[in-house]
Amino acid sequence: MAFQLNEKFRLFALNSTPELTAEIAAVLNCEVGSSAVTKFSDGEIQINIQESVRGCEVYVVQSTQQPGNEYIMELLIMIDALRRASAKTINVVIPYYGYARQDRKARAREPITAKLIANLLEAAGVDRIISVDLHAAQIQGFFDIPVDQLTGIPILYEHFRQKELADVVVVAPNTSGLVRARRLASRLNAPIAFVDKRRPKPDAPQIVNVVGEVKGKNAIIIDDLIDTGGTVTLASAVLMEHGAESVYACCTHPVLSGPAVEWIEASAIKEIVVTNTIELPEEKKFERLTVLSVAPLLADAISRVHNQQSVSVLFD
Amino acid sequence: MAFQLNEKFRLFALNSTPELTAEIAAVLNCEVGSSAVTKFSDGEIQINIQESVRGCEVYVVQSTQQPGNEYIMELLIMIDALRRASAKTINVVIPYYGYARQDRKARAREPITAKLIANLLEAAGVDRIISVDLHAAQIQGFFDIPVDQLTGIPILYEHFRQKELADVVVVAPNTSGLVRARRLASRLNAPIAFVDKRRPKPDAPQIVNVVGEVKGKNAIIIDDLIDTGGTVTLASAVLMEHGAESVYACCTHPVLSGPAVEWIEASAIKEIVVTNTIELPEEKKFERLTVLSVAPLLADAISRVHNQQSVSVLFD
Amino acid sequence: MAFQLNEKFRLFALNSTPELTAEIAAVLNCEVGSSAVTKFSDGEIQINIQESVRGCEVYVVQSTQQPGNEYIMELLIMIDALRRASAKTINVVIPYYGYARQDRKARAREPITAKLIANLLEAAGVDRIISVDLHAAQIQGFFDIPVDQLTGIPILYEHFRQKELADVVVVAPNTSGLVRARRLASRLNAPIAFVDKRRPKPDAPQIVNVVGEVKGKNAIIIDDLIDTGGTVTLASAVLMEHGAESVYACCTHPVLSGPAVEWIEASAIKEIVVTNTIELPEEKKFERLTVLSVAPLLADAISRVHNQQSVSVLFD
Amino acid sequence: MAFQLNEKFRLFALNSTPELTAEIAAVLNCEVGSSAVTKFSDGEIQINIQESVRGCEVYVVQSTQQPGNEYIMELLIMIDALRRASAKTINVVIPYYGYARQDRKARAREPITAKLIANLLEAAGVDRIISVDLHAAQIQGFFDIPVDQLTGIPILYEHFRQKELADVVVVAPNTSGLVRARRLASRLNAPIAFVDKRRPKPDAPQIVNVVGEVKGKNAIIIDDLIDTGGTVTLASAVLMEHGAESVYACCTHPVLSGPAVEWIEASAIKEIVVTNTIELPEEKKFERLTVLSVAPLLADAISRVHNQQSVSVLFD
Amino acid sequence: MAFQLNEKFRLFALNSTPELTAEIAAVLNCEVGSSAVTKFSDGEIQINIQESVRGCEVYVVQSTQQPGNEYIMELLIMIDALRRASAKTINVVIPYYGYARQDRKARAREPITAKLIANLLEAAGVDRIISVDLHAAQIQGFFDIPVDQLTGIPILYEHFRQKELADVVVVAPNTSGLVRARRLASRLNAPIAFVDKRRPKPDAPQIVNVVGEVKGKNAIIIDDLIDTGGTVTLASAVLMEHGAESVYACCTHPVLSGPAVEWIEASAIKEIVVTNTIELPEEKKFERLTVLSVAPLLADAISRVHNQQSVSVLFD
Amino acid sequence: MAFQLNEKFRLFALNSTPELTAEIAAVLNCEVGSSAVTKFSDGEIQINIQESVRGCEVYVVQSTQQPGNEYIMELLIMIDALRRASAKTINVVIPYYGYARQDRKARAREPITAKLIANLLEAAGVDRIISVDLHAAQIQGFFDIPVDQLTGIPILYEHFRQKELADVVVVAPNTSGLVRARRLASRLNAPIAFVDKRRPKPDAPQIVNVVGEVKGKNAIIIDDLIDTGGTVTLASAVLMEHGAESVYACCTHPVLSGPAVEWIEASAIKEIVVTNTIELPEEKKFERLTVLSVAPLLADAISRVHNQQSVSVLFD
Repeated sequence: MAFQLNEKFRLFALNSTPELTAEIAAVLNCEVGSSAVTKFSDGEIQINIQESVRGCEVYVVQSTQQPGNEYIMELLIMIDALRRASAKTINVVIPYYGYARQDRKARAREPITAKLIANLLEAAGVDRIISVDLHAAQIQGFFDIPVDQLTGIPILYEHFRQKELADVVVVAPNTSGLVRARRLASRLNAPIAFVDKRRPKPDAPQIVNVVGEVKGKNAIIIDDLIDTGGTVTLASAVLMEHGAESVYACCTHPVLSGPAVEWIEASAIKEIVVTNTIELPEEKKFERLTVLSVAPLLADAISRVHNQQSVSVLFD
Repeated sequence: MAFQLNEKFRLFALNSTPELTAEIAAVLNCEVGSSAVTKFSDGEIQINIQESVRGCEVYVVQSTQQPGNEYIMELLIMIDALRRASAKTINVVIPYYGYARQDRKARAREPITAKLIANLLEAAGVDRIISVDLHAAQIQGFFDIPVDQLTGIPILYEHFRQKELADVVVVAPNTSGLVRARRLASRLNAPIAFVDKRRPKPDAPQIVNVVGEVKGKNAIIIDDLIDTGGTVTLASAVLMEHGAESVYACCTHPVLSGPAVEWIEASAIKEIVVTNTIELPEEKKFERLTVLSVAPLLADAISRVHNQQSVSVLFD
Repeated sequence: MAFQLNEKFRLFALNSTPELTAEIAAVLNCEVGSSAVTKFSDGEIQINIQESVRGCEVYVVQSTQQPGNEYIMELLIMIDALRRASAKTINVVIPYYGYARQDRKARAREPITAKLIANLLEAAGVDRIISVDLHAAQIQGFFDIPVDQLTGIPILYEHFRQKELADVVVVAPNTSGLVRARRLASRLNAPIAFVDKRRPKPDAPQIVNVVGEVKGKNAIIIDDLIDTGGTVTLASAVLMEHGAESVYACCTHPVLSGPAVEWIEASAIKEIVVTNTIELPEEKKFERLTVLSVAPLLADAISRVHNQQSVSVLFD
Repeated sequence: MAFQLNEKFRLFALNSTPELTAEIAAVLNCEVGSSAVTKFSDGEIQINIQESVRGCEVYVVQSTQQPGNEYIMELLIMIDALRRASAKTINVVIPYYGYARQDRKARAREPITAKLIANLLEAAGVDRIISVDLHAAQIQGFFDIPVDQLTGIPILYEHFRQKELADVVVVAPNTSGLVRARRLASRLNAPIAFVDKRRPKPDAPQIVNVVGEVKGKNAIIIDDLIDTGGTVTLASAVLMEHGAESVYACCTHPVLSGPAVEWIEASAIKEIVVTNTIELPEEKKFERLTVLSVAPLLADAISRVHNQQSVSVLFD
Repeated sequence: MAFQLNEKFRLFALNSTPELTAEIAAVLNCEVGSSAVTKFSDGEIQINIQESVRGCEVYVVQSTQQPGNEYIMELLIMIDALRRASAKTINVVIPYYGYARQDRKARAREPITAKLIANLLEAAGVDRIISVDLHAAQIQGFFDIPVDQLTGIPILYEHFRQKELADVVVVAPNTSGLVRARRLASRLNAPIAFVDKRRPKPDAPQIVNVVGEVKGKNAIIIDDLIDTGGTVTLASAVLMEHGAESVYACCTHPVLSGPAVEWIEASAIKEIVVTNTIELPEEKKFERLTVLSVAPLLADAISRVHNQQSVSVLFD
Repeated sequence: MAFQLNEKFRLFALNSTPELTAEIAAVLNCEVGSSAVTKFSDGEIQINIQESVRGCEVYVVQSTQQPGNEYIMELLIMIDALRRASAKTINVVIPYYGYARQDRKARAREPITAKLIANLLEAAGVDRIISVDLHAAQIQGFFDIPVDQLTGIPILYEHFRQKELADVVVVAPNTSGLVRARRLASRLNAPIAFVDKRRPKPDAPQIVNVVGEVKGKNAIIIDDLIDTGGTVTLASAVLMEHGAESVYACCTHPVLSGPAVEWIEASAIKEIVVTNTIELPEEKKFERLTVLSVAPLLADAISRVHNQQSVSVLFD
């Protein structure tokens, strides 16, 4: 597939995803725009855009992964600079949209930070968001500008399809993940199950259970993101206890914070399949981890937006 | 409990919930404000507020149930009138927030109507929303003004607690309802299950299954709303097929549109328990239907907001 | 006249004016965009746009006639869908702008609903309004976006010109309609008169009078809209009492609600001339009613906007 | 009537209406706030508020009469200063709202300056407008904040009532003034008439006519404002030609620009009755001119707003 | 250099700078758009744009010099007219941005009028500002739209370079002008000095001093604007007292209000060099005054913006 | 001085200034509100406000010093939480406003980050800012909400007054600092000087000079902030070369990033006097550093705002 880009197209990377952006640029057969995002001695961000963007249709790629606050500020400042430099449109590609779990007021006096971030992006002047597997689909509605939400599930599916595992069950690691599990299971033509946690009394120990048939099956746990790994490793243990033949795990966003690598390596998980919406440092790459690329998907979406073609074929 | 309201407090009903509002007023021991919402010959809404609201803290109660478009317009026009009449604050109590299922862009070129409604309400000039069991908790984040989301689950729970059913299982009628099912189940100290639907191939007939143990149990299906009744009656049939002892159903919002009453009456559902966030016309009341009141809950919330006390005790 | 439209032009109908839109499309020699606006069982509107609008200049035709609240919500939801689907510009053609009589605060605590609708349209994301004979010209100023107000008076004039009536007087049916009457009268080179109503004392019966010479003349009553027909039929009776030779009536917008058809048929009005800014159902079409089409006018305006030509030639 | 004002009440004058403001203050029995609005050598406005307004409810009185641009800028700058000085609310009393005749787009590429002024006032930070007899009532809808429109017609009426003129006809000097004429006529229990102008052919001389009975009657011409006096003096001449016994004129706003005084003095107008919404310089005061005060009306409105009482009794 | 302008380019003058705009048009080889800005009898501004601007990229040139309030209102009304006439973009060229000295709250209850003006311009609907030597560079940040700030310093420099003065010192006439003085001095490779004023005690007479070496040197005083001339003539006197060989003065904006011409002519200033960002009436032109044109600079900037080329080469 | 605070007053600290906030609370004799700002494993901020703020007037203290991006996000999220928790007003005390040096577009395609931060704070929902010695006074104008800018100069002055140094000269370390130097010098009744840097040719080495008399004097360098210390240590060296008797340095904001402590300790600076707008870690406290407290100043300002008294006495 050869992509057509006109002369007013610009693609910029910020500091979170230089490799992914380079890969997107390679797919699109374009240059990454010349810019530098550095820090002053006191930690304040300095943006230096080294080519004219006047009248251009700009795409900026930035995941708001750890250190998320730095990356959000980088992105907001970049948007401010582009707007004042008379960019025609500012399109922000956020492969991993951080703070997405703070998407509702679960307890008294909680912020809804995922909405705050949306408001900040709009206040800074962004025209469009392209993102992948938002923690909740409703986050699209936090924006009044167009949001194109892509999904990494077909990429994960393709990986498991090629493995030709027999007798698969797709497992949601908690009660909120069933819709996602159903989407992968339908592609694999598999049943689903989930891990249920409850506490008989307020102070009693938590009881963890599996609801659905897993005995003798190859279980694939799916989540949108894996953070500390606590949820997925607990799920894998319970699945083995309930007689699963093997346990795989997959997610779109490998946050892998704190003890995640250690815990997963110590778990029964045979393979953990993720995408590169978050670029992992070398110390977080380990043998059982398989990283699939979303670059072709993002390149396709960017090209379609740029050429005003329908993006909806990439929505599921 | 005696509620304290100062002289600048005003409570108004619109056309969707005159009985509920009267009940709230009775609990609060206050008058319902004098107003009339009528229609001109051509169907245009005419609002007539018959007492001064200048400098007042106004609470307007309106569910955006069927005919939802009429009720939304009534509400927006009332807000406009109150704002121009110099109300100090305009607090809108929306026991049932309609259009909530259109809360994300599920397919190409879909609107996110639940967000649109939020924007319209803010554009009209509302200061605060009080609602009950939003279809998705993220809808709170569709607003930039404070939203106090109350829940009817404790009211439903209390009803079932008093029934003292043995061997209960709480059932989500689809993959997206597990979190809600877990909340009721935890109060009842019961396990959960769900109804899973899938299609082996794109054109193959749908296979409906129950995931989780239901055999010999008293199943309580819970959903946030029951609309045509299709989902809940299908679920009840499948549960009976899988050996459930009996099937109950409950929800906060009895939309009960189209064939709902007929289907439910023809189903295995022994009792269907709902609240009065939506006022049902006589023809939709039937023997197996139990309606519980949210008036004390809403009155308590209104009083707390009015007296600047914490509302969070009513959040779960 | 052959209209030029580029490939990014899209014309959509909603439910109020399918015939008018088809007629506009025929004049413009273009397709009406593929979409469906249906309702769910509970009355909530479902929008289904079946072709890509990304980067397109979209024109949506919708009159907000009865049932106006439904049609306003349809329009707002369509705008939301188009905006999120990345339409380049959203141009709304509102042949009849409903709620226009609520354009000021005539009494205490009244809303200004015509302004509210303007705010809602802007909040939803519309870029431009094209309308015909707004009840008050000041409604243009309720918007901060461009509003092109066209007029149907030349169309009505042309009809009467061809009738070659002798000794015409143009009559405003009330004190607020003189400016409009003068506009038609100037084209017909005729004098004007008006119907005056007053009440000698607060509780005394209303006295209706004609100010101006009508004796022996062919009177043409003109108004922007005819709603229940009460005003126009009362005027026709008074004109006949004052010796008018014959009475005609005309308006741009045939609201014709409630008893309108019955009353007009029972009146002395010889012919009532209207346009199709509002599509009338069969039961409201009757022998004395003449319907003229605004489709060529609207098509011309749309084409001029699309081709960035001056629209002002269509302003009077 | 004794007015109650609390300690956080502040009343400020700007340069257009020092006398009217002093009179309002006298009625309210309060001080006019200490401030100075002067100009730098290059004409830039300098605002100097000499007392704290932090947390205060501020009322600023300014008519935007000639030199209107200066007075509008004074008002906007004052609002900015008050907002930054932490006034609690900024209430602007605009006895005469200038630029009100530019309230619609009458011809191609015209501004709607009356709406622009509304937007500028809101952008500057005003919370409420109190005005008198807006040129068009729809101007209320140009604002999204509360607008209390008072009327001077009862004041004009009271003057003519006391004259006890026999056989009165109230005359609108053009086709757009009939509604206003009807309001005064109803209070006087009098018939109405109007002056009609038309041109038989585009280049033919204008024909001026009176529609309605005026012969032998005492005619009272009413308009919202008298600017150059051209309209009212032409009307008076035509009325005399048509046999009027005498001609009076009245309006709320005596703009009296250019040749107005000269023309009126040369006309058949016996007395011209106006209010002090615009303060007239000595050279514009002449024998036939009677100036009535709106200070009691404005003081009453301010007091009612301040004390959160209904203002609607002052609307007609 | 031949400038390329496409057919949708429009350049309009308002009343402050007809000559400068004509000069810019001559450089660009384009027409000045046909429009008239006149006044009604009562001083209200009437805008008359005599050609279609629909879909056009419009540039309006207006300095907000004396009478600044008139010129600001002219500009705002023109923007409103252009927006409602469907201009594609509205670019405002403000060679001299008035009220710029009111750019912070120096004392209690002061407005920040320079920010207010920015807000008013944005509220009216401007898309971009091009200006020259803003009093403070931070005024760019008062806008959220792109602001291209050009500088007249190279033009002033070129004038002095050609004079080939020996032993130059560039002098700031007060403590806030050193950055500007350093910019001119660096181009001239000259040292800098400044005039310091202080008061030993609150009521003691002011002491004026020169800090830096000026003895025997040719001093060039530089400021962004010269208003009453008080600062610059005082500075020239002190410089002569401290042994300066000669004193020149220069600035970008010749406000020259009040006694400015008289004072400068009575001073030791040998030549005063300014630009035509403000058009001077004949009575303010005098022998020692040299006026340099910014038209080529502005024409270049306009062309670059229009052709989406980098403007930054014109920033210093 | 005893401060009066009512029961709806709340003071909260975030992570940048716990000690300063505690000191302010001690002066005000109030509690610091109960809250915790922690981080999840992946670095996302978690806010936990542990007491009701409904209807409260909240003051949040946060300096946006290093790590500034973290502290800005903390502040924005806290504001979002407070707003959604129905705080009545949200007043943000920012003793040190970071990113303030990015207050204009100095070069092509630069952001104006200080304005961006202002926009983000307003978008999040802040009602008022209290800050100290903004880098440029114009930053007040970046906000449309009230900003009370306090100054630490009297605190620094008092310190030097007590030292009773003879023959003082106040020195600005660069051309932009003269206004500040003049303010301190006037209080000390001292002359001023500044350090001038220039480059004879683009590639030639920089020449550093002192303009003004410093020989034999005790020089006090003043700046608003000291960051890496490069500017102030270079200035101290040049002053000593030019014969200064001794060199002191002072500033309001001790950023002291990177090599600052090391460089200052190696310099000729005898004492460096700062305030605690930025809390310094132990490793940045050294013998020659004197830290003065702004807590009494901030407490006074907070009390005055809370009690609606004039704050302007604290402006200079």
